[in-house]
Amino acid sequence: MLYFEDIEVGEADAFGRYEVTREEVIEFARRYDPQPFHLSDEAAAQTHFGRIAASGWHSCSMTMAMIVARGKERPQAALGAAGIDELRWLKPVYPGDVLRVDTQVLDKRASVRRPGIGSLRTQVTTYNQKGEPVLRMIAATLIRCRPAADHTEGQ
Amino acid sequence: MLYFEDIEVGEADAFGRYEVTREEVIEFARRYDPQPFHLSDEAAAQTHFGRIAASGWHSCSMTMAMIVARGKERPQAALGAAGIDELRWLKPVYPGDVLRVDTQVLDKRASVRRPGIGSLRTQVTTYNQKGEPVLRMIAATLIRCRPAADHTEGQ
Repeated sequence: MLYFEDIEVGEADAFGRYEVTREEVIEFARRYDPQPFHLSDEAAAQTHFGRIAASGWHSCSMTMAMIVARGKERPQAALGAAGIDELRWLKPVYPGDVLRVDTQVLDKRASVRRPGIGSLRTQVTTYNQKGEPVLRMIAATLIRCRPAADHTEGQ
Repeated sequence: MLYFEDIEVGEADAFGRYEVTREEVIEFARRYDPQPFHLSDEAAAQTHFGRIAASGWHSCSMTMAMIVARGKERPQAALGAAGIDELRWLKPVYPGDVLRVDTQVLDKRASVRRPGIGSLRTQVTTYNQKGEPVLRMIAATLIRCRPAADHTEGQ
């Protein structure tokens, strides 16, 4: 289990493979973002999307699925996210795309108000199969510090 | 149809009613954010959530569902979102919560590079049934300007 003390600023990771299907794009959009350009190629053809494209929230959710799967391979004492800054949908995500993720830790800070907890700011970039960045964001997440009893195991 | 010219800075709106169910919280989390505190009350009891709570991306998606439904009542020439700033998950969203949304237009700007398109920055706040803000973000969205032929119809 990786704790706050184990995370190094600048540390990068690359992972994930998410195949975007037309069925899933439409299912997500029907429920959460039923704008015409997420539901129909005809409607999307009249916009800059050109053809049916995933909801931006769906792209975030698929990115999260890859992040959580990575966390199971490389467990962290994660306590969830406080927020996101500078979320940008850089390119449309289309059915047939295969997504992957790069992360880099930008900074870390021990909580003054909450001893035993630290926060990380991590830049997350999602790419399609052509290597084009489709989504970028900075995630502020909380992570537990190493429990006192474990200090001797430390680095 | 509301175009860029019809939107006034400072303009506020309040809408939506989304009942958060346990089934939907778990279904979303299983697919996109299978962290234990989104899937099980027992695991959530060991965190600050206390009991099963919705994925932050699910809260964003439910918020989007209310925004799109509002857009159908009050159609805008919307072209999607470029990005989000300062997204903050302020309080957990729990099964049984009933969400609603407030929006306020912070500023608007005609695109220099793309004539005929404008951008809006809108603060979006999602509240639970106790009136507590659970999510806040600033959405940067694109909207078409009124087509030239419609100018005489004015605002």
